[in-house]
Amino acid sequence: MSIKVGIYGYGNLGRGVECAVKLNGDMELVGVFTRRDPLNVKTLFNTPVYSADNVLDFENKIDVLVICGGSATDLPKQTPNLSKYFNCVDSFDTHAKIPEHFDNVDKICKDNGTVTLISAGWDPGMFSLNRLYASSVLANGSLYTFWGKGVSQGHSDAIRRIKGVKDAKQYTIPVESALERVRNGENPELSTREKHLRECFVVLEDGADANAIENEIKTMPNYFADYDTTVHFISQEELDKNHAGIPHGGFVICSGNTGVNGENKHVIEYSLKLDSNPEFTASVIVAYARAVSRLASEKSFGCKTVFDVAPKYLSQLSDEEMRKNLL
Amino acid sequence: MSIKVGIYGYGNLGRGVECAVKLNGDMELVGVFTRRDPLNVKTLFNTPVYSADNVLDFENKIDVLVICGGSATDLPKQTPNLSKYFNCVDSFDTHAKIPEHFDNVDKICKDNGTVTLISAGWDPGMFSLNRLYASSVLANGSLYTFWGKGVSQGHSDAIRRIKGVKDAKQYTIPVESALERVRNGENPELSTREKHLRECFVVLEDGADANAIENEIKTMPNYFADYDTTVHFISQEELDKNHAGIPHGGFVICSGNTGVNGENKHVIEYSLKLDSNPEFTASVIVAYARAVSRLASEKSFGCKTVFDVAPKYLSQLSDEEMRKNLL
Repeated sequence: MSIKVGIYGYGNLGRGVECAVKLNGDMELVGVFTRRDPLNVKTLFNTPVYSADNVLDFENKIDVLVICGGSATDLPKQTPNLSKYFNCVDSFDTHAKIPEHFDNVDKICKDNGTVTLISAGWDPGMFSLNRLYASSVLANGSLYTFWGKGVSQGHSDAIRRIKGVKDAKQYTIPVESALERVRNGENPELSTREKHLRECFVVLEDGADANAIENEIKTMPNYFADYDTTVHFISQEELDKNHAGIPHGGFVICSGNTGVNGENKHVIEYSLKLDSNPEFTASVIVAYARAVSRLASEKSFGCKTVFDVAPKYLSQLSDEEMRKNLL
Repeated sequence: MSIKVGIYGYGNLGRGVECAVKLNGDMELVGVFTRRDPLNVKTLFNTPVYSADNVLDFENKIDVLVICGGSATDLPKQTPNLSKYFNCVDSFDTHAKIPEHFDNVDKICKDNGTVTLISAGWDPGMFSLNRLYASSVLANGSLYTFWGKGVSQGHSDAIRRIKGVKDAKQYTIPVESALERVRNGENPELSTREKHLRECFVVLEDGADANAIENEIKTMPNYFADYDTTVHFISQEELDKNHAGIPHGGFVICSGNTGVNGENKHVIEYSLKLDSNPEFTASVIVAYARAVSRLASEKSFGCKTVFDVAPKYLSQLSDEEMRKNLL
């Protein structure tokens, strides 16, 4: 019996989920649910499109609903609401608000007999797992997370909001020398500026003042002021040709010592190099959708995170196959 | 209430467990159990030493017994026997015999109401976890495991058994160009020879025939014949000075594609760089000892592997702290 998956919200992430489900033979797509007019939404694999207003008609036809809304305003409402009726997965990534989101969703799930896993993806998600495993194994270890090289949607948007900017793309880049110090187990204390660079590719409106805009970017509080930022002005053609992708990635590194006097050093490193941030995020979500369907059939109701899910629940393999082939 | 840990077997791994428990504030050591005369065993931190014959006197005084025997002959007997009375962790690492070992231990644990986790360490262990997570997320991914640079005890022993060899140390080294091809997502098919090199440092007995021994090493079936092997003859002083450590490590890399036509490539890489193979293995074991004590208090009896254990069971942090600080 294949796992019946619904996609709620159809942007980059929703399309990524549609692609990822196609790669998993034990799953099938029931439909895409959109707030737009369904007639105007064309899916990648001819998955049927329905209005989000009609999602409750599918209460008994969907095993897991993947909610592909944004973390700022969509998910804090959508995930609790939909968890009344469906087992869900979301990719809520506002780290500071995860505890609140968890509590909201947990209550709904327990009241309604559903399972919802929040914050699936790579950070939060696979990076979180690696932070937990590494710091549990190296009890005195120092943990570092670096992001990039990759496109930050939020920072690109911030530049695009500047008057005189026609289009822009921002790359977050880990500082190679900082990475090397961490890999060497030096346990450095690193400031924000020492960890990441920001590189911006900006298309100006006709007649815009390049110097003023460069200054406005570099001094923008929270987004750029605490970083070494470089700004390149390029044409729209160049931006479209060379910066159309949404790659990302990064590193979780933990170093710690063991021995009678801490004489032996150990470095654990996990890294991702992703051509498409949303498609990889979607791939993680889909693996956790499998876990959610299994947890629901075990009646393990409530809100879950990646920390709560035994790894075996993610795999299509049987326990025996896993032990034989992967252990 | 701290977790009471016993150590059964006191070689390099047992000493590593003793060190690791000291780093974990929620654990305490009850004792070391040895097959040698306890009077002749001196522990690193004055942990009491008892005869292995008396371990059953501690049936109600130990929450988790860490079994530090060898995989070839000790663990296949010790782990089932001791699982009748104790919750246990072992580091059974004969990959081909894991299914059989699991079945033996599982029956004993279920009959006796105990929890035993087998095959903790880094491979099997952390590497297995990464193989499972990566291949679950990238459903069409290609998985690669490389070991080293590090000392292989088995290969060092094989050289030492050659007539005319006084002492020896063997390093397993991943082939850098193969690693690079895998990291680039080329999904190469790699032969044994293309993945790893073997480098041997050998001390000869007086009058031994160096050429004959070099040839015997390089042509030894299973151990060296399928690899590019280099042999260095050095003095005992040099071996003791430069090759006394037991470092190890390695890489698990998975690359796969997503998108409508597989147009986007993703590479997941997990690596370890370990100054002390047994001390890191011990650190993993101790984190899983915590998990075992929790699973036992939940009466989740049976044999477990790292695949069966939700990550949160490994951490000293509460669920709330984990979600706040690590997710």
